[in-house]
Amino acid sequence: MTAEIISVGTELLLGQILNSDAQYLARELSALGFNLYHQTTVGDNMDRLCECIETALKRSDVVLLSGGLGPTEDDMTKEAVARVFGLEMELDEASKSEIQRFFASRNYEMTPNNLRQAMFPKGGIVMPNARGTAPGCIVEQNGKAAIVLPGPPHELIDMFEKQARPYLDKKCDSAIVSRVLRVFGMGESSVEHRVRDLMDGANPTLAPYASVGEVTLRLTAKVGKGGDANALLDPLTNELRARLGDLVYSTNDEKLEALAVRLLKESGKTLALAESCTGGLVAQMITDVPGASDVLLEGVVAYSNAAKARRLGVSEDTLARFGAVSAQTAREMAEGVMNGSGADFGIGITGIAGPGGGTDEKPVGLVYAALAGGGETFVKKLQLGGERRRIRAMSALHALDMLRRRLLGLPLESNN
Amino acid sequence: MTAEIISVGTELLLGQILNSDAQYLARELSALGFNLYHQTTVGDNMDRLCECIETALKRSDVVLLSGGLGPTEDDMTKEAVARVFGLEMELDEASKSEIQRFFASRNYEMTPNNLRQAMFPKGGIVMPNARGTAPGCIVEQNGKAAIVLPGPPHELIDMFEKQARPYLDKKCDSAIVSRVLRVFGMGESSVEHRVRDLMDGANPTLAPYASVGEVTLRLTAKVGKGGDANALLDPLTNELRARLGDLVYSTNDEKLEALAVRLLKESGKTLALAESCTGGLVAQMITDVPGASDVLLEGVVAYSNAAKARRLGVSEDTLARFGAVSAQTAREMAEGVMNGSGADFGIGITGIAGPGGGTDEKPVGLVYAALAGGGETFVKKLQLGGERRRIRAMSALHALDMLRRRLLGLPLESNN
Repeated sequence: MTAEIISVGTELLLGQILNSDAQYLARELSALGFNLYHQTTVGDNMDRLCECIETALKRSDVVLLSGGLGPTEDDMTKEAVARVFGLEMELDEASKSEIQRFFASRNYEMTPNNLRQAMFPKGGIVMPNARGTAPGCIVEQNGKAAIVLPGPPHELIDMFEKQARPYLDKKCDSAIVSRVLRVFGMGESSVEHRVRDLMDGANPTLAPYASVGEVTLRLTAKVGKGGDANALLDPLTNELRARLGDLVYSTNDEKLEALAVRLLKESGKTLALAESCTGGLVAQMITDVPGASDVLLEGVVAYSNAAKARRLGVSEDTLARFGAVSAQTAREMAEGVMNGSGADFGIGITGIAGPGGGTDEKPVGLVYAALAGGGETFVKKLQLGGERRRIRAMSALHALDMLRRRLLGLPLESNN
Repeated sequence: MTAEIISVGTELLLGQILNSDAQYLARELSALGFNLYHQTTVGDNMDRLCECIETALKRSDVVLLSGGLGPTEDDMTKEAVARVFGLEMELDEASKSEIQRFFASRNYEMTPNNLRQAMFPKGGIVMPNARGTAPGCIVEQNGKAAIVLPGPPHELIDMFEKQARPYLDKKCDSAIVSRVLRVFGMGESSVEHRVRDLMDGANPTLAPYASVGEVTLRLTAKVGKGGDANALLDPLTNELRARLGDLVYSTNDEKLEALAVRLLKESGKTLALAESCTGGLVAQMITDVPGASDVLLEGVVAYSNAAKARRLGVSEDTLARFGAVSAQTAREMAEGVMNGSGADFGIGITGIAGPGGGTDEKPVGLVYAALAGGGETFVKKLQLGGERRRIRAMSALHALDMLRRRLLGLPLESNN
């Protein structure tokens, strides 16, 4: 079965918003086992929209449309679908009541325009919108289907998950199952070099993607309904682990900060953070994980030397002799925040994130990350490239990876 | 002049990566004054790619393609353009030397495949790639042009800015100038209600967009080359300011954290942060602004009561009587971190970000934000909806907005 996506909206054409709906739908359709060959974006123009729908229905079994369900004249997606299928528009009484109820409950005035949202191509399956006022619909004809969804992502996702996906699932006789391995500590091209021969497989497939500081490896297997995807995915996973070793930190797409929180919880340990150049980024990543309050006792963002000395107990002598960006300062930051808070582990990060502040001796990108705990303190010297945001992100990831390695009893540096 | 964008890559079709290239190009083409009616995404398949290029060239003057310039068999964008235009591929010696130089400088082995990157449709204008190994090109025929750009965003942006934009600029006789007003403290629908009549204008146009906690208003004017866009944008800006008052915090797209850092710098004041439920998010936002080290003395992430007492001097009595999530605790956090650090202002934030931790009396989303400084402390009680990430983001924005209002001498709550 072939599916394609049409995104409707002038704001997309002008680049005013990012098309995250198309990515979401593409991923979901791919997971359901649909073949995907085209995506189109078109504006709020009846003729062009109809032409796109016609073209899409010729080459695909299912066409998903997002956007253009609002109450204004500019919103015409349902009308365009009706025109292409040769159907009248008719009022759906249930939708009308629901919209009236919505406006009454908020003491908003309902305009005649709002009733447009209760009109649908005749014979279509109406999909109520649990998150907004615009219902969607499914229209079928001659074995082809058009599925009309709202544009706002949280409305689209809710409607897709609860109503469109069950409908589509029945149409498919196969399923795509993906597994994501996450890798830290090696660049994309080096990872690719090690696994390139495995990327030629047809089922499962293997595809690497790079994000800041990390590489993800997506393994995808296609199986018949009820088939065992793990039987295809496990051997490839094992081969990748054999080649990349402890650089692979997750085989279920768990992020480094979530893994760190989980490992701390499982071992009953606590953490404290002392951040300079990362400015609270590690704290923010850790506390983005629900339940982080069980393991993070405290964090200190100490930019100034005064704060490093007063809040963290870094000695004036260390700051004077080695400077704020030094292995010694990182070490004393990690130990200071650990001892001060009573946590089991302390992380200290100091460096130069740029764009200003670099010297020949201590250039932008020079960062020291320290991990204290269990009577030992490790310090890692990093020379990071790229811009401020990347330097900060990489520093945070390195610190979290040091913690992971410590908690799992792995060497601080991979031998792989 | 009409332009359209074709994004090439199976990873886009499968939703494995987000199509930020298309948004970037759409925004830039719109700013150059091109009309944009279609965007297409297609996979690494010669027939389908050629068909898309042919269709696009029929309806548009300029077609921009991104992706598919790599060294592998899967990369075929240039070949497809050559086929559609009926041109041979030929070797560009300058590109060949450049690629050889690149490999030699990194001690990488160069494979014959890499030479594919030096092949171009005959007669095309080659665009060197300052950020990678894949050059792009421009091919012209019968008044139509295809512009081939690399897929990785930093390569594409660099090549577009330095080479494609100057080429396109010559083709256009008008320019689009946008201005972005940023609004905090009112929901999208309320903002839209106040300005709806202004959204009917044709030149300049006005379009509102919502992101977490904020509304941006994009004003766009179309003027002839060398024309004065400000003469169109200024009156609309003034009208919007008259209607929304001090809810408008920026008329040049400056973000709230950047504005806060700038206002602190301009007034020679310093800041310290005490964060509980936001977990370092405010610190991270502030320190994301280059030069933040001049104004942020320190930040403390104090999750536990012990940390609030020891690090910030919140009294045990306050914690016992009112609880960690209370106006009193927020006030003492703000004052404690201000006094402890010697900063001019202190921010304290405590609340329940969820998903766990809520009670009937103190539900998820209850947050207190305090701002201390100049002998006064203000505390704002917030009841925020949505998920953990939204509650944290909204809390941080409210705190930054309090600081903005204090620094500008505005009332803490808008009267608008």
